[in-house]
Amino acid sequence: MGIVVIGTVAIDDVVTPFGENLDAPGGSATYFSLSASCFTRVKLVAVIGRDFPKKHIQLFKKKNIDIEGLEQKEGKTFRWEGKYGWDLDNPQTIATHLNLLQSFNPVIPQSYKNEEMLFLANIDPELQLKVLDQTQAKIIAADTMNFWIERKRNKLLEVLKRLDILIINEYEARQLTRESNLLKAGKKIISYGAKKVVIKKGENGALFVSKSGFFTCAAYLMEDVLDPTGAGDTFAGGFLGYLSKSKRYDDSAIRTALAYGTVMASFAVENFDIKGLAGLTSVKIQKRLKVFKRICSF
Amino acid sequence: MGIVVIGTVAIDDVVTPFGENLDAPGGSATYFSLSASCFTRVKLVAVIGRDFPKKHIQLFKKKNIDIEGLEQKEGKTFRWEGKYGWDLDNPQTIATHLNLLQSFNPVIPQSYKNEEMLFLANIDPELQLKVLDQTQAKIIAADTMNFWIERKRNKLLEVLKRLDILIINEYEARQLTRESNLLKAGKKIISYGAKKVVIKKGENGALFVSKSGFFTCAAYLMEDVLDPTGAGDTFAGGFLGYLSKSKRYDDSAIRTALAYGTVMASFAVENFDIKGLAGLTSVKIQKRLKVFKRICSF
Repeated sequence: MGIVVIGTVAIDDVVTPFGENLDAPGGSATYFSLSASCFTRVKLVAVIGRDFPKKHIQLFKKKNIDIEGLEQKEGKTFRWEGKYGWDLDNPQTIATHLNLLQSFNPVIPQSYKNEEMLFLANIDPELQLKVLDQTQAKIIAADTMNFWIERKRNKLLEVLKRLDILIINEYEARQLTRESNLLKAGKKIISYGAKKVVIKKGENGALFVSKSGFFTCAAYLMEDVLDPTGAGDTFAGGFLGYLSKSKRYDDSAIRTALAYGTVMASFAVENFDIKGLAGLTSVKIQKRLKVFKRICSF
Repeated sequence: MGIVVIGTVAIDDVVTPFGENLDAPGGSATYFSLSASCFTRVKLVAVIGRDFPKKHIQLFKKKNIDIEGLEQKEGKTFRWEGKYGWDLDNPQTIATHLNLLQSFNPVIPQSYKNEEMLFLANIDPELQLKVLDQTQAKIIAADTMNFWIERKRNKLLEVLKRLDILIINEYEARQLTRESNLLKAGKKIISYGAKKVVIKKGENGALFVSKSGFFTCAAYLMEDVLDPTGAGDTFAGGFLGYLSKSKRYDDSAIRTALAYGTVMASFAVENFDIKGLAGLTSVKIQKRLKVFKRICSF
């Protein structure tokens, strides 16, 4: 068991209606790794600059995340500036500074090559393809975003053909397929070549579609969401982390995995940046899963 | 067991992206009655004009809906003209012709007075209060809409204080409480005096809140929705119909009732007006409930 993740490790400047959080740890691979490491062995591939704070690297180590593939180079770390409105959904991107990401050439270290699962977190589909050429993983999952759907649709469709699981949000699913109905969108994504698709609906749960059917997972309803940044990557981390741990990919395992993804995302959003994930224990996760089951089963 | 419902029996002119449906049977009490009658005895209080087609009255009879309280008077039936966009959500009201509804003075027939449950479907809160003064029902539930929240807020708050269950949609819940978070909105409604509240979220399921907690119910995901008119009233009919039949109001019964409400609404929206409900059998309902459980349990 074990997951290799390739994505961004970033510095975020985030503004939500509840406050400003500058120079915060962020990035798709950061959230994914911290979440998945609660379930399974995680091996990280990403690039950071000399400006990336040591304490966050220490946190990766503390969480037993393998950082052999975390390249630290001269230059600046990728930086994202975003702003959320009162709906706490779909943030406005104020600025994206690619910095070292611009010349990133991801290489999977030799010691990562036996891991069963690969997650291509949100990053340029051309980089995702480069990584796909280096892997022998049995289960390959990926995420993407509106930016790539608009600008690199054809490369993204190439990635899709090679995926076991695509994990995207509802806006991306609609944009990618030009279908407003999410079930139709899910089926269309399957027709593009991905074997399975998880469509994340934020505070409205998630939808899973495969060739053989579909099912839904409710959201963990919360009164106080402070910062939704990273919720989707954290969801993916819980989802794939559980699958990696359980070594099963049948419907029943996937249902449970969706629930774990949901629960992990709920921890992420109730605090700024990675604070909700940093001190998370297995006991807390199990306790919330129990509550979640209680509030959405019948 | 048995439910008295007071609301509108109407003629609707509805336009959806999939077609135009003119002179169609509609109204809150119509959808509610047809749905609830699949579970329990329903007794209808409403007013219609001479223009209301006989065949729809025949349908009420065929469904064993008691129409002693359905007053037919000289004049025209209440008429609603609405238009749905591609989101098939929140229709635009093109016109509302109150007609006989303007002078409606609802009277609960003597033979209705022993029923255990009363549902005040969406209608002027002043009329809802008049009905409340005539009832000895043990369980009182109600719905309302944006029009009354704006124009008769104080009367509506008087109604709320006397309710066991308020059943409204997410837009109404936010408007009524001025809270964007639905869980907070639900708790605020409880603080207004309603003992329990069901917040309907359309294709995103439903949320139940009471003093002792909350839980959620997923939606029955569909590829093809033709006409969402009456979905909310149909949901309420399935929800209360099941509770009336089961004679239980504990959490477990309410969870099952939410599922039945969801399933009933799914039948309503897959066809125009009441067509999806008219020929519905118990076997079809049970079959869909089974599918629903399968797609949203974990």
